[in-house]
Amino acid sequence: MNFDTVIQSGTVVTAADTVVADVGIKGGRIVALGTDLPPTGAKVVNAEGKYVFPGAIDVHTHLDMPFGGTTTADDFESGTTAAACGGTTSIVDFAIQYRGDELRKGLDTWHGKADGKAAIDYAFHMICTDLPIARLRDMDKLVDSGVTSFKLFMAYPGVFMVDDATIFRAMLQTKENGGMICMHCENGGVIDVLVQRALAKGETAPKYHALTRPMTAEAEATRRAIALAEMAGVPLYVVHLSAGDAMEEIRKARQRGVPAFAETCPQYLFLSYEDYERPGFEGAKYVMSPPLRPRGNEQRLWEGLANNALQVVSTDHCSFCMKVHGKGSMGKELGRNDFSKIPNGAPGIETRVHLLYDGGVRPGRLTLNRFVDVIATTPAKLFGLYPRKGTVAVGSDADLVIFDPKKRHVISAESHHMRVDYNPYEGREITGRVEQVFLRGEQIVTDARFTGKAGHGTFLKRAPSGQAALGLTAG
Amino acid sequence: MNFDTVIQSGTVVTAADTVVADVGIKGGRIVALGTDLPPTGAKVVNAEGKYVFPGAIDVHTHLDMPFGGTTTADDFESGTTAAACGGTTSIVDFAIQYRGDELRKGLDTWHGKADGKAAIDYAFHMICTDLPIARLRDMDKLVDSGVTSFKLFMAYPGVFMVDDATIFRAMLQTKENGGMICMHCENGGVIDVLVQRALAKGETAPKYHALTRPMTAEAEATRRAIALAEMAGVPLYVVHLSAGDAMEEIRKARQRGVPAFAETCPQYLFLSYEDYERPGFEGAKYVMSPPLRPRGNEQRLWEGLANNALQVVSTDHCSFCMKVHGKGSMGKELGRNDFSKIPNGAPGIETRVHLLYDGGVRPGRLTLNRFVDVIATTPAKLFGLYPRKGTVAVGSDADLVIFDPKKRHVISAESHHMRVDYNPYEGREITGRVEQVFLRGEQIVTDARFTGKAGHGTFLKRAPSGQAALGLTAG
Amino acid sequence: MNFDTVIQSGTVVTAADTVVADVGIKGGRIVALGTDLPPTGAKVVNAEGKYVFPGAIDVHTHLDMPFGGTTTADDFESGTTAAACGGTTSIVDFAIQYRGDELRKGLDTWHGKADGKAAIDYAFHMICTDLPIARLRDMDKLVDSGVTSFKLFMAYPGVFMVDDATIFRAMLQTKENGGMICMHCENGGVIDVLVQRALAKGETAPKYHALTRPMTAEAEATRRAIALAEMAGVPLYVVHLSAGDAMEEIRKARQRGVPAFAETCPQYLFLSYEDYERPGFEGAKYVMSPPLRPRGNEQRLWEGLANNALQVVSTDHCSFCMKVHGKGSMGKELGRNDFSKIPNGAPGIETRVHLLYDGGVRPGRLTLNRFVDVIATTPAKLFGLYPRKGTVAVGSDADLVIFDPKKRHVISAESHHMRVDYNPYEGREITGRVEQVFLRGEQIVTDARFTGKAGHGTFLKRAPSGQAALGLTAG
Amino acid sequence: MNFDTVIQSGTVVTAADTVVADVGIKGGRIVALGTDLPPTGAKVVNAEGKYVFPGAIDVHTHLDMPFGGTTTADDFESGTTAAACGGTTSIVDFAIQYRGDELRKGLDTWHGKADGKAAIDYAFHMICTDLPIARLRDMDKLVDSGVTSFKLFMAYPGVFMVDDATIFRAMLQTKENGGMICMHCENGGVIDVLVQRALAKGETAPKYHALTRPMTAEAEATRRAIALAEMAGVPLYVVHLSAGDAMEEIRKARQRGVPAFAETCPQYLFLSYEDYERPGFEGAKYVMSPPLRPRGNEQRLWEGLANNALQVVSTDHCSFCMKVHGKGSMGKELGRNDFSKIPNGAPGIETRVHLLYDGGVRPGRLTLNRFVDVIATTPAKLFGLYPRKGTVAVGSDADLVIFDPKKRHVISAESHHMRVDYNPYEGREITGRVEQVFLRGEQIVTDARFTGKAGHGTFLKRAPSGQAALGLTAG
Repeated sequence: MNFDTVIQSGTVVTAADTVVADVGIKGGRIVALGTDLPPTGAKVVNAEGKYVFPGAIDVHTHLDMPFGGTTTADDFESGTTAAACGGTTSIVDFAIQYRGDELRKGLDTWHGKADGKAAIDYAFHMICTDLPIARLRDMDKLVDSGVTSFKLFMAYPGVFMVDDATIFRAMLQTKENGGMICMHCENGGVIDVLVQRALAKGETAPKYHALTRPMTAEAEATRRAIALAEMAGVPLYVVHLSAGDAMEEIRKARQRGVPAFAETCPQYLFLSYEDYERPGFEGAKYVMSPPLRPRGNEQRLWEGLANNALQVVSTDHCSFCMKVHGKGSMGKELGRNDFSKIPNGAPGIETRVHLLYDGGVRPGRLTLNRFVDVIATTPAKLFGLYPRKGTVAVGSDADLVIFDPKKRHVISAESHHMRVDYNPYEGREITGRVEQVFLRGEQIVTDARFTGKAGHGTFLKRAPSGQAALGLTAG
Repeated sequence: MNFDTVIQSGTVVTAADTVVADVGIKGGRIVALGTDLPPTGAKVVNAEGKYVFPGAIDVHTHLDMPFGGTTTADDFESGTTAAACGGTTSIVDFAIQYRGDELRKGLDTWHGKADGKAAIDYAFHMICTDLPIARLRDMDKLVDSGVTSFKLFMAYPGVFMVDDATIFRAMLQTKENGGMICMHCENGGVIDVLVQRALAKGETAPKYHALTRPMTAEAEATRRAIALAEMAGVPLYVVHLSAGDAMEEIRKARQRGVPAFAETCPQYLFLSYEDYERPGFEGAKYVMSPPLRPRGNEQRLWEGLANNALQVVSTDHCSFCMKVHGKGSMGKELGRNDFSKIPNGAPGIETRVHLLYDGGVRPGRLTLNRFVDVIATTPAKLFGLYPRKGTVAVGSDADLVIFDPKKRHVISAESHHMRVDYNPYEGREITGRVEQVFLRGEQIVTDARFTGKAGHGTFLKRAPSGQAALGLTAG
Repeated sequence: MNFDTVIQSGTVVTAADTVVADVGIKGGRIVALGTDLPPTGAKVVNAEGKYVFPGAIDVHTHLDMPFGGTTTADDFESGTTAAACGGTTSIVDFAIQYRGDELRKGLDTWHGKADGKAAIDYAFHMICTDLPIARLRDMDKLVDSGVTSFKLFMAYPGVFMVDDATIFRAMLQTKENGGMICMHCENGGVIDVLVQRALAKGETAPKYHALTRPMTAEAEATRRAIALAEMAGVPLYVVHLSAGDAMEEIRKARQRGVPAFAETCPQYLFLSYEDYERPGFEGAKYVMSPPLRPRGNEQRLWEGLANNALQVVSTDHCSFCMKVHGKGSMGKELGRNDFSKIPNGAPGIETRVHLLYDGGVRPGRLTLNRFVDVIATTPAKLFGLYPRKGTVAVGSDADLVIFDPKKRHVISAESHHMRVDYNPYEGREITGRVEQVFLRGEQIVTDARFTGKAGHGTFLKRAPSGQAALGLTAG
Repeated sequence: MNFDTVIQSGTVVTAADTVVADVGIKGGRIVALGTDLPPTGAKVVNAEGKYVFPGAIDVHTHLDMPFGGTTTADDFESGTTAAACGGTTSIVDFAIQYRGDELRKGLDTWHGKADGKAAIDYAFHMICTDLPIARLRDMDKLVDSGVTSFKLFMAYPGVFMVDDATIFRAMLQTKENGGMICMHCENGGVIDVLVQRALAKGETAPKYHALTRPMTAEAEATRRAIALAEMAGVPLYVVHLSAGDAMEEIRKARQRGVPAFAETCPQYLFLSYEDYERPGFEGAKYVMSPPLRPRGNEQRLWEGLANNALQVVSTDHCSFCMKVHGKGSMGKELGRNDFSKIPNGAPGIETRVHLLYDGGVRPGRLTLNRFVDVIATTPAKLFGLYPRKGTVAVGSDADLVIFDPKKRHVISAESHHMRVDYNPYEGREITGRVEQVFLRGEQIVTDARFTGKAGHGTFLKRAPSGQAALGLTAG
C-alpha cells in the first residue's frame, strides 16, 4: 500500500459518519481510509483536530452569463477560483438556450466559456426557453451527452417564462429520457402586474423588488410545479426556494410520496427583507429573485433543512458589481431609478460552506453529517455525480476539504476572490475555515490561499438526474 | 499495514454511502477500508458481489422475561444465537423493576440472566413500574452505569402502567441526567374497559385482542407522550409504533422541532389484522401489543420509514410457544378460552434483517442506505452506542454482516434458531441471505451457520441516550 | 291583517330554524309568520305535515348557450319551467363576452334570450374572455347595472382560458368595484396535452374525457386561483368544484381567513367516474367539465358540505341531447368518434332540490337547515340577492316551496320538463316532492304540475357580490 | 289576531336572517312576526333602529358554588339578575356530586339553591366526581329528569379529576341514555407537578398560576377527550377552551366527522396573560382555569369562532371577591402568598353579550347572525333547549332582547349587578346596549334597569343533549 498523499488523523465526516481516520490518495482517488495508513513515499498532510469534508458541490451557479445588456461579473476562472477557496470543488452551471436556437447551440456556447478556464470540475444544466414539440427530442441528446437536467421558468414573462403546457410536455419527455426538470417557481404573470402598478405609482426603490414578488407567488408556483410533476409522474427539483410556505408544499408532496426536492441558498438563511431598507441604493446589492423574505422566514428554512423538507443548499451565484464591471459593462446602477432594471443576482459561490458551518453547525441547527449531506452528498446523488463526487469514500475522487473548526476570519469584498465589488455578508465574522482543498488529489488551496490553476477543472458528464432522484426517493 | 482479517471486494453500505471496498480488521475493530488492502498474513474473506453491512442492532428485545405465570421461550443464549443468525450483533434488552423493588435490583437480575450466555453484545433499558419521588434519583445512577434509557407504560393498568404525573416527573429527571424515556403508547384505561365489555359479551377469541385495542388508543397515547415530553423539554422514543395515525403524531412533532423518535417492527410492516382471523386458535400466534392493524396501515408505515416519520425498525422479540415451552411453562394456550390471558408477544429477533431487505429494499420501498440506517446506524446513535456500533467505519467495532443479495431461503420454525414452536412468517420465501457475521472481528456465523458461542457477548455501557437523541435532532 | 294567501301550519325551514307556522303573503311578499294568521279573504293553502322552504336559487345555469357549433337544448322558457318544477325560483345564468366584443354586447344578447321567456326570476354573471387593460373599467359598469360577478376560465385554452395576469388584473378591478370573480378551476394547459396524447393513441371513447382531466389539475388550479385572490385581497368563488383535493384547498384558505367560497353540483355528489364506463356511447351523457370523479370522492364532498368546506350546491345545468335537439342542432353525437368533440355539459336544473333532499337530508348527511342554506340562503347572500331572496322571512319575496317529505316519485326523461332526451339520474326513486311553488306570491307549480307562465320571471339587479361575500366571511 | 305585546319595527336577528319586522307576543310566546302586526290592545314597544335578539343563553355558570373553603360571591338571585341585565335569559348551571354522594343528592342541593331565587330560566349540568360502575345507571335517571349533560374533569387530581377509564365508561353510558359529556380539558397530573415545582422554587405570585398550566396541557387533554369520545362513538362538548392549539384539535376532529364541539369565553377573547403581570396582587383577579393565554392567542379564537372551529361563547362565571364576600367568606386574598390557593374563577355573566357585540360584531370579526348563533342558537340546540329557547321564531318562548347598537356605556364594578368587588373589564367602553329584556313575554329589564324579580325563573327540563348534538353534526 503506497499513496501519493496521506491526510493523517483528521475527523472524516460523511453524510452519516464522523470518525477519525487517515485518508490515502492515489491517482486522484481515495484508495484507503484507515487508522494508520503507511505514509512512506507519500506527501503527508496533518489534519489532526480538523475536519475532512468531501469537496462541496454547488449545483446552482451562473458564471459569465449575459443578462439584460450586461454580463455577470464572474467568469469561469474567477468564479471557480473563488469556489475553490470556499471549499467547493464541483459546480453545475446553467447553459442557456435563447429563443429560436437549438439546445445544442446554447450548450456549445457554455462549453466554450468554461473550457480551459475552470479551476474546479464543472457540469451543466440546460435552461430551456423555447421548446416546441418538434424540439423535445433534442432534450434526449443532451441527456446522452451528460447534461441531464433542464431548468424551466415560471417567471420572467417574455424572457424565460414558459407556459404550463410546455412545462408539462418537457416533464413527460424527461420521464422518457431520465432527465430532470429544475424549476424557478414564481408566478411571473402576477409579479409583472404588481411591478407595473408599483412603477406607475412611482415606487422605484430597490425594496419594491421584494414588495412586488410576494411569498404567495412563490408558494403558488411551487405547488403548481409539483402538481405538474405529479401528473407527469416525474421527479422535480425546485431551485432557490425562499419562502416557508413554498417549503411546506415540498414537504406535503414528499409526505404523499411525490419525489419533489428543493434547494435553498445562504441568502435566504442569513439575510432578510430588512436589508432592502438599507440607506440609499444599497438595497440593490440584495436584488435577486426570489427576493429576500421578512425576518422570521429564515427560521422555517433552517428547520426544513434539518428535517429534510429541504435537501440542498446551493448558491445561485450570479454576481453583478454595484458600479462598473471589470469588463466594462454596467452593474446594479442600471436600475438606480427603476428597481425593475437592477440586474437580478448576488455573489455567493465563495461563502456558502463557511456560512453554513458557522451559522448552521455551530449553533446546533444542523449536525455535521447533515451539513455534509446538504452541501455535497445529496447534490451529488440528485444530479448524477455520485459516488464519484459528494462523499469521502474508497473509490471516490479525492475532492477533499480540510477544515479548521476554530480558525476565525472575516468576510469582506477586499479579501474575497469573486470579481465583484461588494459582498452581501461584508464584515461578518466566521468561526471555521477552509484550509486545504484537494481536487482529484491535487491541492488547489493551501493554507487558505488558492494554489490551483485555471483549466485544471474538467467537464463532468452526469448520469441521468431524474433516475438518480427517483433512486433517492425511498429514504 | 497488516490485518487479522480482510474482507475483500464487498459492496460496503453505510447509512450514506455504497462503495466497493476491502475491509481490514485488526484487534476486533475496523482499521482500514481500501481498494486493495494487503491480505498478507490475514484471514481473507471474499465478498465480491455481496453487501457488507454493519452488524444490525435490535433495541427492543425481551429475553428470559417472566410474564403472567410463564416466561418467554428464548433466554439470552437462544435469543442471541438466533439474532446472530439473522445478522444482529447487538441488542438492547429490557430489564424490569417490579413494584416495591429498587431499580438496581431489576438491573442486577437481568445482568444475571445475560452474563455468560449472550452470543452477541448486549445492553439494557430499564422498565420502571414504581417511581415515587424519592426514587427518581436512582435513575441517575443507572445512567452513570451505562443504562441510559427508561421505559414507561401508558398501558397495562395495575401491572406496568404509570400515571401522567409519574411520566412527567421521570422525564424531568432524564432532562437532568441525560437519559431518555421510551414509551409504550396505548391508553390502558380505555383498553381495559373494552376488554371487560368484550369478555362480558363472550367475545373470547384471539381476534378480540385486536378489536379491544383500537388504533385511536395508540394515537391518543402517542400524542400525549409527545405533549409531556414537549412540556418537559426532553427527547422521546416511542416503542413499537403500529398505527399510521400514531405515526402522524410523531411526524407533526418533528416538524415543529420536537425531538420525538419512533420505531416500528416487522410485524406491523408484514402482517395484519387479518391474521387474527385464521382458523382455530392460530390467531393467538399474533397476539401482541399493540396488535396487528388492518391491511393498508402497513403502507403508511413503509412510507413513514422512507421519509423519516419513523426512524428505527426493531423487533419487540418476545417469544411464547403455542404449546409448552422447553422450560415447562405454559405458552399461548393459557388464553385459549380468554384472549386476555394469551401471553402477549411474538418471536422476531432472527427475521428482521431478512424481512426488511426482501420486503423493503428489493421492491424499492427503502434504499440500501436507509435500510442500514433504520436497522443499525440510527439505533446506535439514539441509544449511545455510536460510533462503536452501527456503521462500517474506521475505528468502529468489526461487527459486520456479509449478505448475499441473490441467495434464497424460506423462513420456517423448523430451521430457525429461536426456541419457539412457530414462526409468524412461516413459509415466506426470502431473497437475500446473511451469510457471514463478525462480532468484534470474530466470525460467529459462517455460511449461514452459527459458529459463535454463548458468553462471547459483552455488556455495552451506553452513553446518555437523551443527549445522543438531541444531537441527532438537527438532521 | 289580511293576506292574499295564507300557507297554513307548514313546517317552515330557514338556514337556522325549523318551526311550525303560518305564512301570510301580500303583494308578492311575505308579510307575516304566525301561529294562527287570519285566513279571511285569503287563498288558503294547507301545508300541515309539509315543509315550507324558501324558493331555491340556482347560481350556475347555461340556458340557450351556443357551444361548438350547437346550442344547449334548454332555452330560458324550457329551462326555467323545469327549474320551477324542481323548486327553484331564481337562477343566475352566464352571459358570455366573445373575443373582441364589448362586455355589454354579451349582456345585451343574454337579456334578449331571457326577456319574455323566463318563468322564474333571473340574474346574470358575465363570462369574460377578453379583458385587455383598456376594457377593465367596463366591468364597473356591469356592476352598476346589477351584474356583479364575473366568470373567468383557467381551462379551455384558445376558447375561454385567460392567463394569470389577466385574472389578477380582473381581481384587482373587482376589488374596486365590489364585484366578484367566479372561477372555473382546471389547468387547461395540462389537460390539452393529455387530450392530444390520448387522441394520438386512439383513445377516443367518452371515458377518456375524464382520464385526461385529472383531479390534480383541478386542485392545482383551485390553489392558484386562491393564491391570486389572496394576493389581490378579494373574495373568490370557485364554480362546480368536483375533487376532494380541490375542496381541501378551499378549506385551508378559509381557515387562514381568506374569503374563498365554492359550490359543488349534484352530479359530483351522486354520480361517479364509473358512469363513463357504461356500455356503448352512453358515457357521453356524463361528459362535463370537470368530469365525474372516482367513487369515494363524493363522500368527501358530502362531508365538506356539512362542515362548510363547501358553501353552495348549484347545477351547472348545460343540456345537450344525445341525438338531435328540437332546434335541429347536433348533440352529444358530435363526439362519437372523438371524446373531445362531445359537447360538455349535462342537465340538472330540475333535479337538484329533490336529489339533495333525498340523498342528503334523509340519510342524515345534511340537516334540514343546512340543506336550505346551501340551495338558497348562502347563494342569495353571496350573490347580492339577500334578503329579497333565499329565506322565509318577513319582507322577503314570497318565493316558497311546499315540500311533501313522504311522497315518492321516479326521475325520468319521460316526465321531466327539461328539453333534453335523457336524464343522468334516470330511474332513481326519490322520497320527497316539490308540490307547490310560489314566485312572488303567485303559484307557479300546483300539485307538482307547472301552472306558471313564460315571461313571468323578471331580471334581478344584484347588489355587489364581492361586498356581500366579504360580509359573509365572518361566520 | 291580538297580542299581549307587540315589539314594533325592530331589526330581528336570528342565526340566519336579519329582517325588519314586528314581533307579536301572547301567552309568553312569540305568536307572530310581521310587517304590520295590529297593536290593538297590546303593549307596544318601539324597536325601530334597534336589534331584536333572542335572549342569550349562558351554558356555563357556577352560582352559589362552594370552593376550597369559600363560596362563589353570586348566588342564583344576584347572578341571574346580573345575567338579565346583560341580555341573558337562560343559564345552565353546574350541580356538583361530591365523592361518595349519589348524583341525585347533588342535583337536589342545586335545585334548592335556585328555587325561588332565579330571575331567569335555568337548567343544570351535573358534575360527576365519583362514578363507580354501579353508579353509571344513575346517569340515566338524570337524563330522564331533564339534566342531560355531565361534566367531567381531566384536571384537579384528588378533587374533581377522574381517570380515563371512568371518562370512557361515562361516555359509553351517555351513548345509551342520550346525554352528553362536557369536559374540562387540562392534564391535571402535569399541572400538579409544575405547581409543586414552582412553589418549591418560591414562585408564589398570581402569574405562576398561568405559567404552571401550559397551553400544551390543554391541547393534550382536548385531543385525549376527543379520542375517547371517538372510540365511544359519542358527541363531546369541551368547556372553556382557551388555547389555539386545543382549538385545532376540535377543528381536526370535526373535519373527520367526529361530533366534537367547544365553547370559549370572553376572557379568552379579550384578556391575556399580560394581565397577570399587573402590579401587586391585582393579577389574582384573572386567576381562573384554564388561565389567560399570551397575546396573539385570542386572534386564533376569534377566527375559530367565525369559521366554526368553536361553536359557543359562554362565561364560566365563577365570581370571587378580591376581599371579603358579602357572606363573610374569604375571596382571592386566600392565595396572596400562594397562587395555588387563589380561588379559581372570575365574574362574567353580565358582560358577555356586550363584549361580544362590541369586540366581535362591530369590528367585523363576527356577523350579526354568527353572534346570535354562538350566544343563543347553538347553545340551545346543543343542550336540548331548542326551539323553545335560542331563536326569534313563531312558537318559541318570548325571550327577547332589544339592543341599541349606538348607545355607549362603560363597564364598571360600581354599576354592575354582580355581587363581586371588581370587574375584569373595568373601564372598558362599550358601544351597544341591552335596553329591554323579555322573559317569556314579561319585561325584566326596562331601559337598562332590572325590573324583573327573583323566583320568576323556572327550571328547564332539557331534551337529551347528546342526541341534539348528533342532530347538529351534519351542518
